[in-house]
Parts: sequence; C-alpha cells; structure tokens
Amino acid sequence: MRGFKRLIGVSEALEKLRKAVAHRIRKVEEVELMDSLGRVCAEDVKARMDVPPYDRSAVDGYAIIAEDVFGASPMNPVKLKLVGRILAGSNPLTIPRVERGEAAEIMTGAPMPSNANAVVMAEDVKVVEDGIEVLKPVHPYRNVSRRGEDFARGETVIRRGVRVKPWHIGALASLNVKRLKVFRRPKISVLSTGDELIELGGELKPGKIVNSTKPMLMALLLAEGCIPLDLGIVGDDVDEIHSRILTGLRKSDGVIVTGGSSIGVRDLVPEAVKRLGEIIFHGLRIRPGKPTGAAVSDGKPIFMLSGFPVAAAVGFEALVRPILAHMQGCVIEPRPKVEGILTRRVVNPPNTRSYVRVRVFESDGRIMVEPLRLTGSGILSSLTRGNGLLIIPEELEGYDEGSSVEVELLQPIERGDER
Amino acid sequence: MRGFKRLIGVSEALEKLRKAVAHRIRKVEEVELMDSLGRVCAEDVKARMDVPPYDRSAVDGYAIIAEDVFGASPMNPVKLKLVGRILAGSNPLTIPRVERGEAAEIMTGAPMPSNANAVVMAEDVKVVEDGIEVLKPVHPYRNVSRRGEDFARGETVIRRGVRVKPWHIGALASLNVKRLKVFRRPKISVLSTGDELIELGGELKPGKIVNSTKPMLMALLLAEGCIPLDLGIVGDDVDEIHSRILTGLRKSDGVIVTGGSSIGVRDLVPEAVKRLGEIIFHGLRIRPGKPTGAAVSDGKPIFMLSGFPVAAAVGFEALVRPILAHMQGCVIEPRPKVEGILTRRVVNPPNTRSYVRVRVFESDGRIMVEPLRLTGSGILSSLTRGNGLLIIPEELEGYDEGSSVEVELLQPIERGDER
Repeated sequence: MRGFKRLIGVSEALEKLRKAVAHRIRKVEEVELMDSLGRVCAEDVKARMDVPPYDRSAVDGYAIIAEDVFGASPMNPVKLKLVGRILAGSNPLTIPRVERGEAAEIMTGAPMPSNANAVVMAEDVKVVEDGIEVLKPVHPYRNVSRRGEDFARGETVIRRGVRVKPWHIGALASLNVKRLKVFRRPKISVLSTGDELIELGGELKPGKIVNSTKPMLMALLLAEGCIPLDLGIVGDDVDEIHSRILTGLRKSDGVIVTGGSSIGVRDLVPEAVKRLGEIIFHGLRIRPGKPTGAAVSDGKPIFMLSGFPVAAAVGFEALVRPILAHMQGCVIEPRPKVEGILTRRVVNPPNTRSYVRVRVFESDGRIMVEPLRLTGSGILSSLTRGNGLLIIPEELEGYDEGSSVEVELLQPIERGDER
Repeated sequence: MRGFKRLIGVSEALEKLRKAVAHRIRKVEEVELMDSLGRVCAEDVKARMDVPPYDRSAVDGYAIIAEDVFGASPMNPVKLKLVGRILAGSNPLTIPRVERGEAAEIMTGAPMPSNANAVVMAEDVKVVEDGIEVLKPVHPYRNVSRRGEDFARGETVIRRGVRVKPWHIGALASLNVKRLKVFRRPKISVLSTGDELIELGGELKPGKIVNSTKPMLMALLLAEGCIPLDLGIVGDDVDEIHSRILTGLRKSDGVIVTGGSSIGVRDLVPEAVKRLGEIIFHGLRIRPGKPTGAAVSDGKPIFMLSGFPVAAAVGFEALVRPILAHMQGCVIEPRPKVEGILTRRVVNPPNTRSYVRVRVFESDGRIMVEPLRLTGSGILSSLTRGNGLLIIPEELEGYDEGSSVEVELLQPIERGDER
C-alpha cells in the first residue's frame, strides 16, 4: 500500500517554496514606452517636471479674477471688459495679463493669464457689445487645473515591481518619458512525461493520446508574460527525465514537469528531481491535483504538476503564478471575478482547497453558479464548457445550495441575449 | 450661452451605435494553435474523434472485473490472479484480456484491458506471492476514464466568436488540431487634436504639453488585441482634422478622435466629423466625459472622446470596448473585480453613470474602497495612485459610507505585506 506520507496545505506549501526559491529575475531591458505595456517596471520613475507645467483652464470660458464676480447673478450680472483671447498652446509668457474688472476669453487647456485666478464657463456668461456679463459667482481656482496637480516634480510616478498598465503609459508620456526600464520576461521550461503521449500534430497510433497539458501550460505562461520553453515529451525513463530537467534549469528560470509524479508503481519524476535539488513538498491538499509537488535546484523552482490538464491548470494557478510573481518582485495580477448564487450544494473534503468547475450564467437578471457534474481532472471540457472556478478554502466544508459565492471567471458570463 | 442640446444615457448611446455600426471584422487568418491565444475564433470546431480515444485508467492500480470484488474488505480480501501489466502508451489491441478471477496491473493513462470494467487503486490492494488481494469493493467503471467522456466525436469544442483561452488550446490540442482560423485583429486609428499638444519625446516649449491621451488609448487598444494606428496630432484646424479622420477610415476599422469636441467656442471635431458621416449622439450622461460623442461613416465608428486622459479612458471603457466586441461578434471580456467597503459617501448626479476613481486596500483583513479626492478628468494620477473604478449606475444617487460596493480593479489591491 502506497500513499503520500504527508499532504501539505497550499498556504504552507507556498510559504516554504517562497523561502526556498532564491532565484530572481533581475536583468533589465530598456524599451520604448509603448512596448512596456504588461511588463514589470524595473525602476522608480520620478516626475522631472510639474504636470500640468502651468496653471491652465479646464473648460472653455473666461479667465477672470474670482473676487470680481462674488455677487454675480442673472439679476445682478457683473460686467467685465474683454482684454484678449487665449488659445490652447499659447505661450504663457506672451499672453495678456488680466486686471480687476477684466476678462480674457480662454480655451480648454490654454494657460491661465497672470493675475486671473478662476474661469467662468461660457454658459454662465452673456456676451455683450464691449465685453461680457457674468451671471454666476465662481470660487478662486474654479475650473483651473493647477500647475503640478497631476504630478508634482520629484513625485514617484511608477515604482519598480509594478506591472505597466495603459494608465502608466499615459502618465509617463505626460512626463515626456520615452523609454522605460523593465525586467526581462521570465523563461519557464515545460516538460511532459508519459509513454502514451505524442506531440500535437503527430500520428495517433493505438494507445497514444495527444499531449494537451503542455500546450495549455505554455499558453498559461504566455498569458502571464513569460517565455515558455518547450522541453518536449519524454517517456517513462528516469535518466532522460533528469537530463531534460537539467537542460531546462540551465536554459531558463524554472521548470514545470507534468505527469509521473503520483505515488504509483514508478515515481519517476520525484526520483529524477531528487538528483537535482531538494523536494520542498510532494502531495498537496488541493482538489484536483493531490500529486502536485515542488522542488528547488540552485534557487530555481521545479514544479511537479499532474499530467491531467485540469489538475495541471489548478497547480499552475495555485503554485506557479504566485512563484512567478515572487521571482519578479511583483504582486499577482487579479483575475476577473463575479458573485453568483449556487444552484446546488458543493462539498469540500476536510482541510482541502477545492477548485470546483462551474458554469456561470445569467437568468432573470441574476447571476447563477452551477457546479458541473463531470469534472474529473482529465476532463478538460470542464474548463471549456464551464466558464468559472469556485475556489473553496481549506476551512470550509463546502457551500449550501442558494449560497452567494464568488467565482473566478475563465470566460465571459453566458447571458440570455448573446452567445 | 452654450450647452449640449440633449445628453444621452450610456445604454441608449450603445444601442444606437450598435445599430449604426454595420462594419464587421470578417477576414479570417489561419494560425498555429499556440498563436491563437487571445484571438477571436472564426470557426466552430467539432471533435473529429473521441477524447480519450479509448477507455483508460485514471489511477495506478489493477484492472479488474468489479463484480469479482463486490464483497471485498480487509477481513475478507478477494484474491485475484495477475495476468499482466499494462503501461501507459500500450496498444489496446495487444494487451491481455482479463477474465473473472483475474487482474492486470495498470498505470495511470494506460488503456483498459478488454472485459475489465474497473480499476482498484494500488493502496487498496495487497500484493501476495501469486497475485493480489483486493481489500475494498469498487463500482463498475470506478477509476476508469471512458472513451469520449471529455469530448465525443462530432461535439463542438469551440465556437466562432469565442476568445481563445489556454484551456481552449489544451482542448484543441487533445483533438490534434494544429491550426485554428481566427479573425484578423481590428485596426483602430487614434487622432489627437489640440494646438497645445506635442508628441512624446518632442521639445516642450512654453504653453505646450505632451500628449498623454493618445499613447494611453493606443495601449488600451493593444490590451484589447487590436492594432492601433497612430494618426498623430493635429492643430485646431477643421480641414486637417477632416482629412486625417478620412485617412483613418480608409486604413482602419474605426477612428478615435480626442479633444475638440466639447461645446466650446470652436466645435472643430464634430464639424469635421459631420462631413464624413452621421453623428449618432454627442453629449453623454457620464462622468467624467460628458462631451463624448460618436458618429458612423460607411458603417465604421468614429469615437469623439475627451482630450483629458481620464475622461478618454472612461469613454474607451463605456463605448469603444463594447463596439469593438460588436464588430468582432464576440462578448466583452470581464474585468477583474473586487467587493469592498466604502470609506466615505459618494454622490452621483441624476441620471448619470459615474466612474469614481478609488483606492482599494486591505486593512485588518477587510477590503476597503476609498474614493480619491483629486479626480478631475485631467488627473491621470487618479488612475495610477488609485487602483480601481467604482461605477455608479444611472438609477442610483450614490453610495453611503460603509456600503459594500463592487469595484473594477485597474491594478492589484494594496496589501499590508506587499507593495
């Protein structure tokens, strides 16, 4: 009789693994700002100037001195003399100054004339023959974007370790930052083991199946901004498994090996991995994916995931993503989530984290969460027919029918009106 | 006095726009399976075979006839004769047959011997000199993956209009599908207007600012899987705006124009757009972004967004993303969301959809949502200092302090232990 000596919880497994994985992605590349989208920023960028660089009008209207119009109303309009017109892009040094009793027409984005301290909007003004009548009071600095109000000179705009989003690109562009230092993409190798596996596109002889887990993991790595390295498929041969993992460790930042790691007749992967480093854990209190394990060699992680695609996807989500963030010094990106009502009870084995495959759909304006019935760890269709993962934490025994639960969305919600 | 004649709600605006935008992304490209990640699938793919292609064992154990061990227990073991050993990858046609009273050792993934109908796990068996003793009964087909249980021949695996995810890549690989037809990426042009704007990297003379809205929009388009086309910056010149938009319409599937569309002294963009097609609406009940509008020329959309980056980002989210999905025949991808507790009251103007910039952080294990104080539509830092958008629908007047609200996450949540 065989079995895992000791199963470990996901949090404990991650804690141990984070301690053991000393390898870091440190090499820096400088790229064009637009090419930094989605990359991990490698520098703290400080604003080298104020943004906006001058006080400017936030609306189309009239630059005035607020004190002039404190009592203005439609019944009591305040008349001001027009002294000029300021267009966006005007040089702040050459535009007219506004004195008490005066106003200058001003466009959105145009620099404020000196002495003026507010802009009254065009719709609150009546244009008369020799000037304007202001019908409404304004507070000082109303409708004025102050110099440096977006970014003040010296302020940090983006920090090392932040994944670059479109708004960072906008912010850095506003500061005229043309290039950004980012960390190189992590390279992760993927190796599949199993005598029954053939590569995608190969000839399917009797008894063979196409390896679906490796392409799925490589796509998951791509989606995480990594460069996947294909180590191929190796039969059930310890020496060959050992040699391929070694190649992976030399060429990349970590290795994912699938298959051959359950406690069966031949524990090929753990045997090969033991020659290369320390096994941190083997056997995880997770469902699906109990035979999941991890080792560390020279500070680099070796993930032993199930050969079954669903269990491998769960292992990727639970272990690989957090360790990728750890090696890059960034935080894990949030996944799309939705709250919905459970259509039937789901149970969770004691002290286990379950990843229940569900179908999320809208019915009568309510979001419903239906656990799928056919959900073996080899049933990849549970991730394509279904569109969500309900993660039940270790401390819960499950959820009752009708519970409100939060679900990770793998694909958009099915709605009545669109398919 | 000026103003928008009629403001329109977002839902109504989208409905009108969807009706008017007749242009569709129809051109199909065939790509390697791995390159289809994130693309919109252009075909219904049916399974050309059963997956798995044969009954196989889901565990390491012994293939038996379930009826032989119905009464088995540790006190009452059932002895079976071993007739062989079946490895993963074996040819189903040449493996031993199992008769009553017999068992065959079998590996995970190996084909089931004919006549056997269940697998008893290795840990429920005691190996004895001339066979095994089974200590536990099993149901028929226990630990057996049935032929076609994942995908049955003829079943649809992915539909036209679905955005390809890693699990689709796994599913298609399992069916030995090497290439996939996807729709070409939409090309969208971006034009900025404003005499005050210079291009990123240019010389910042007094009165000028660097255009941040265009790079941000181009990054948003990239993140949506589109190809952004840069139409540059044009000064406040109707003819030039008209000519650039025309170029954009000829070269791409739609145009985004920023700036120059508020009801000010010079309505340059709407004026130029009117020459090219029909303005569907101009003036949106959205905050920020009231001056947002859209037109259609020969079925292609022209989006008139604010020149202010935050209002432009909101316009992109509210209008451009849904219309991109419409043109591609797919659904809008969900955004990461989180529920949290509002730290102070927020109010919503009547009949307006507000996009409130918030900071989402964890405090004492609770997720808190703090509306930012400085949130003008020119304040791009509200999207980089903040990390979320609280969207208040038209029918609500706001949310009270302490309310539980759902927030779209623009960046990961700030946690106490990580930055």
